[in-house]
Amino acid sequence: MTLLVVGSTAFDTVETPHGTAKDCLGGSSTYFALAARLFTKVRLVSVVGQDFPAEHRQLLTQHGIDIAGLEEKPGKTFRWHGRYSADMNSRITIDVQLNTFGSFQPKVPNSFQDSPFVFLANGAPATQLSVLQQMHAPKFIVADTMDLWIERERDGLLELLRKVHGVILNDAEAKQLTGESNLIKAGKKVLALGPSLVILKKGEHGCFLFSNYFHYAIPAYPTESVVDPTGAGDSFAGGFMGYLDGCDHLNFSNMKRALAYGTVTASLNVEGFGVSRIAAADRATVDRRYHELLQFVAP
Amino acid sequence: MTLLVVGSTAFDTVETPHGTAKDCLGGSSTYFALAARLFTKVRLVSVVGQDFPAEHRQLLTQHGIDIAGLEEKPGKTFRWHGRYSADMNSRITIDVQLNTFGSFQPKVPNSFQDSPFVFLANGAPATQLSVLQQMHAPKFIVADTMDLWIERERDGLLELLRKVHGVILNDAEAKQLTGESNLIKAGKKVLALGPSLVILKKGEHGCFLFSNYFHYAIPAYPTESVVDPTGAGDSFAGGFMGYLDGCDHLNFSNMKRALAYGTVTASLNVEGFGVSRIAAADRATVDRRYHELLQFVAP
Repeated sequence: MTLLVVGSTAFDTVETPHGTAKDCLGGSSTYFALAARLFTKVRLVSVVGQDFPAEHRQLLTQHGIDIAGLEEKPGKTFRWHGRYSADMNSRITIDVQLNTFGSFQPKVPNSFQDSPFVFLANGAPATQLSVLQQMHAPKFIVADTMDLWIERERDGLLELLRKVHGVILNDAEAKQLTGESNLIKAGKKVLALGPSLVILKKGEHGCFLFSNYFHYAIPAYPTESVVDPTGAGDSFAGGFMGYLDGCDHLNFSNMKRALAYGTVTASLNVEGFGVSRIAAADRATVDRRYHELLQFVAP
Repeated sequence: MTLLVVGSTAFDTVETPHGTAKDCLGGSSTYFALAARLFTKVRLVSVVGQDFPAEHRQLLTQHGIDIAGLEEKPGKTFRWHGRYSADMNSRITIDVQLNTFGSFQPKVPNSFQDSPFVFLANGAPATQLSVLQQMHAPKFIVADTMDLWIERERDGLLELLRKVHGVILNDAEAKQLTGESNLIKAGKKVLALGPSLVILKKGEHGCFLFSNYFHYAIPAYPTESVVDPTGAGDSFAGGFMGYLDGCDHLNFSNMKRALAYGTVTASLNVEGFGVSRIAAADRATVDRRYHELLQFVAP
């Protein structure tokens, strides 16, 4: 099958206790796609400026990612500069330049509109909804969001939640969206808003999956080497959606496996600056780590 | 087999968003014993003042706990008064009166000195070491500690760690003890200090187990009703040690099961003020929740 991702492409400057990486390739669609391509065919819709170099396009296409939906517009590519705390559990944004991403109106190429799996990376709910209007009845749609949209575009977000199959939130976002401080209650309240699948990410503490039929929890892969947490959430989503897209059925067992694969791709991602580690990973590495993770969590 | 616990007995006044409970029975040995008695015979060594009522002794003995080591001394029982934050993830201490516990010199009754399993609840390392000197070669010793002793009695604590089989720490304590912000590295560093088993508690995020042979992670039981988190760590330790004490072998499978049982007794404990919920629990309730937990975490 094929998996469509719509999201940002960026140049990130990242400061962590391990050093600083300047203007490295980033953005939600990039992290997602480089994780998902380990499992399935990925189609990417995003926007860049005239400063986006050929070598980045090559990196994506060399990894089998179809970038027919990567639009180039006059101006510059989205830029983000952030600094992580000593324990890397929090970060501050030093600078954001939205540039071409500020007026991103995703255009899904005709050849992408039949994609059965769709991931709507973090973006304005209206933008995410506009993508769905361009699609031909996708089988499985998952959306990400952020605190900004929960606060400022609540109605649009609630409309989106009624139209997607799954949503991925972090713990703070789930609490903010539902007004519920208990995460289990928060997860169930998000379910009641429409999606049949709710994934709550807890960073180094792993994630929860809520559905109307079963709940599931998986700890993070026990990595000792966190170099740069940027993109962890998107590479998690990429591993999850990518694995599922390669499955015959969307059943509970496959969803659990997909969560474990997402956990693995996120763990690889954070072990290098930017996309360096996830871009270098192959399926054998991922599978080895997947089996280690199962050993780590199997009761 | 039998399981000895040495720790505090207290009157706790607890304020949570769910209300206030005044002067309820608490203390590490009490929480531990009421969880462990669900699985095995428990012997308790602690100290109270002349204000400790007969009804509390009866509660303990009615649950099969041997309180021959519960010393009564002139003065009052240890009192603690705390207030939890709205999300119950942090608390402040409003008042502490150590009273008779301030000069606690545990005396292990002759009839208790052959106990094969020993839990040294949080206390000064010198006091914990004095308990070990009174024992006849116990088979399995686990100790708890806290930030105060890591800071002020580091040498004593390091000596203790060389003499116990296991140690239970929370995430902040493990980081403080090792100077390591990555929990996986911290766990391994604690192992290198002597214990062959290191359990790192992460509150609502579950716990890790580290040994030289395997690592394991288990999420917390997904409780929606946290009324009073006081004693969660001790009731966790009680379920863990209690279950293990009832096993024929200290192998990995049993340790994993014991961690799941500890997770369950902690989850019951936090659903009521003080010891009310864990004291009311029976083994059937615990086993039901244990199987629910396995379903929640099994990959």
